[in-house]
Amino acid sequence: MNAEIIAVGSELLTPGKVDTNSLYLTQHLNDLGIEVVAKSIIGDDRSSLTEQIRTSLSRSDLVILTGGLGPTEDDVTRDACAAALGLTQHFDDAIWDAIIDRFSKFGRPPRDNNRRQANVIAGAEVLPNPNGTAPGLWLAPAPGKFVALLPGPPRELKPMVQDQILPRLRSLVPPSVIRTRWYRVAGVGESDLDALIAPIYTQYTNPVTTILAAPGDVHIHFRARTDAEPEAEALLAAVADPIVALLGDRIYSDDGATLEESVGRLLLKHGATLATAESLTAGLLGARVTETSGSSAYYVGGFQTYTNAMKTQLLGVDPAVLAEHTAVSEPVAIAMAQGARERTRATYALSLTGYAEGDQAGLVYCGLATPTGVQVRKLKLFGDRHRVRSLAVIQSLDWLRKTLL
Amino acid sequence: MNAEIIAVGSELLTPGKVDTNSLYLTQHLNDLGIEVVAKSIIGDDRSSLTEQIRTSLSRSDLVILTGGLGPTEDDVTRDACAAALGLTQHFDDAIWDAIIDRFSKFGRPPRDNNRRQANVIAGAEVLPNPNGTAPGLWLAPAPGKFVALLPGPPRELKPMVQDQILPRLRSLVPPSVIRTRWYRVAGVGESDLDALIAPIYTQYTNPVTTILAAPGDVHIHFRARTDAEPEAEALLAAVADPIVALLGDRIYSDDGATLEESVGRLLLKHGATLATAESLTAGLLGARVTETSGSSAYYVGGFQTYTNAMKTQLLGVDPAVLAEHTAVSEPVAIAMAQGARERTRATYALSLTGYAEGDQAGLVYCGLATPTGVQVRKLKLFGDRHRVRSLAVIQSLDWLRKTLL
Repeated sequence: MNAEIIAVGSELLTPGKVDTNSLYLTQHLNDLGIEVVAKSIIGDDRSSLTEQIRTSLSRSDLVILTGGLGPTEDDVTRDACAAALGLTQHFDDAIWDAIIDRFSKFGRPPRDNNRRQANVIAGAEVLPNPNGTAPGLWLAPAPGKFVALLPGPPRELKPMVQDQILPRLRSLVPPSVIRTRWYRVAGVGESDLDALIAPIYTQYTNPVTTILAAPGDVHIHFRARTDAEPEAEALLAAVADPIVALLGDRIYSDDGATLEESVGRLLLKHGATLATAESLTAGLLGARVTETSGSSAYYVGGFQTYTNAMKTQLLGVDPAVLAEHTAVSEPVAIAMAQGARERTRATYALSLTGYAEGDQAGLVYCGLATPTGVQVRKLKLFGDRHRVRSLAVIQSLDWLRKTLL
Repeated sequence: MNAEIIAVGSELLTPGKVDTNSLYLTQHLNDLGIEVVAKSIIGDDRSSLTEQIRTSLSRSDLVILTGGLGPTEDDVTRDACAAALGLTQHFDDAIWDAIIDRFSKFGRPPRDNNRRQANVIAGAEVLPNPNGTAPGLWLAPAPGKFVALLPGPPRELKPMVQDQILPRLRSLVPPSVIRTRWYRVAGVGESDLDALIAPIYTQYTNPVTTILAAPGDVHIHFRARTDAEPEAEALLAAVADPIVALLGDRIYSDDGATLEESVGRLLLKHGATLATAESLTAGLLGARVTETSGSSAYYVGGFQTYTNAMKTQLLGVDPAVLAEHTAVSEPVAIAMAQGARERTRATYALSLTGYAEGDQAGLVYCGLATPTGVQVRKLKLFGDRHRVRSLAVIQSLDWLRKTLL
């Protein structure tokens, strides 16, 4: 079974608004093994919405509409849905009584326009709304096709989803076992990674493979669905195991741990500590390492040496070396890492110096001082200021991770 | 002219993903007086997308598609658009040359699957993409109907919108005068701010007032539309001037400058420099200050003193003070700021120490050392680890800004 979600309301089409109901619904639908294949937001326009409902119902088994059930002329969901399905509406006395009852608790009668909220599309089941005036509606307009109309306010929608929608869906989807695996890979571009693993995962439709990419950080998600647990595990293993073997130590996490968490675990395991010396990134590396709670067990601190004078004063980088090689050079990255390690007495020290902008943008040197010596790597990164700095942090952490393995 | 936006990509249909491109596009379309009447997110499915493009084009003048222009089989936007419009595609040698050229900068040849990115729908104008391999496409399939295909990554999409899409749209919409003003306010919650200014802006429908909020940072946008420029300015002044008077120096920017840019400008104006001493944030403050290009003119560097030992070793914080008051205390914040200022000889030094988690989460002390002495502020911040650290950075920068005014 697949689903789509249509949120109704012009206010959801402004630059600052996000349709959070659809995120909530997606989570619960996915948990049942129902895939969300499309989402739409439609303004308060009857004919646009009618057209959208037709399109959605033609390609999806379940269409959930949220919002547009209020009392005003702008609230077009019931009318558009009836039009799309070619069904009539009738006035429901029981709903009207419940609306009168609800208003009486506030000490006033309903308005005339509230009467619209008592309209029911022919054949629909009425979903009671204990938290508002607009009831929901549930329709099965054709075999295997379902439409739900839900109120827009989250505090009305969520209880209705829990009490009315999920129980109905559970009886519709075959009881199935869903097993997932997540892997995270740093320092490989999305298209490179895809070229590497696509020959494997494209052979399988179950599990479904999803690749999510942020700059420098790619997440691979496998989701298997079957009737029996051993089979689900076998399906997962068939596609994931060869990919894991292929990627090897490029995988930094198989349990949702972030890159900085993985590095932190390895430092803890070795009883080791880390210091940082940052020019290009001016603190981004230390900030990233300490995103993880408990990081004070292994991160001691660092130096943001943004000027040459600070590199010399705080880290002891020789001014003659800076003059001869410039601040963005192998010897300076080495001296920064060594200086940070000596001054903090940490087990490891990482340094970053580079250009975020200009002719040589993306040229970065990363130093790594260890108990057995100091090494340096030249990186060539692409993107704007923000991206170059972010990639430099990721690459330096990933290098430390591989060193610790 | 009305518009709709279709975002393409199954990854945008997961419970944690928000389509931020459509928010950015909506802002710019609205600024031109183009209303966004619908938005959709469609998974990587050719026939669903084809159907959606047909539906969208039947009800809207302009359809903007984002994403799905990549090199893999999952990238279906070009194919679906060609199918929806009944047009063919051809391989474009110039695009392919540009892709080869781009890859050569990375020192390698493109892959075979990149060839798909050189396909052009018949009659389309090619929109160059200086920030990625996938060019955009612009089509005018029928009188008064327009379709744009844009890359999904924001750092590729945004420049293409600015350089290619907005100029085309400006020539298509009737010349009406639109005047906007933006104000940014730090350190005030969205609902507090709204309670303060709503009595003013709700009196006016033109200009339209929009409030966009991120934690600790609220942006207020006014947009006036008329036929004549003086009238637009008068409309803007009527609502914005009283709000500006009310907010006073809580406004840190009226020209789009970020908080760190505003602080940087003030430091430059005073010929002053800044150093940082960070415990809680471990580099986040220095990283934020240096998000702005040219920040090396005023930011000298800083100290990430995550452990007590580092506070003493690197900043000279008295171990007796640490023992008596703990690391999260007024005297330690003061000693950190003083130590950073003395060791770097910067004009100003900011320090941050606090709890991001635990019983006292959100308790933060911020120190500010200046040429005339050192001050300290106690902050009580709310939220998770990430939010507390981010708010601490914002509040410390805003304090420095007000001090520099």
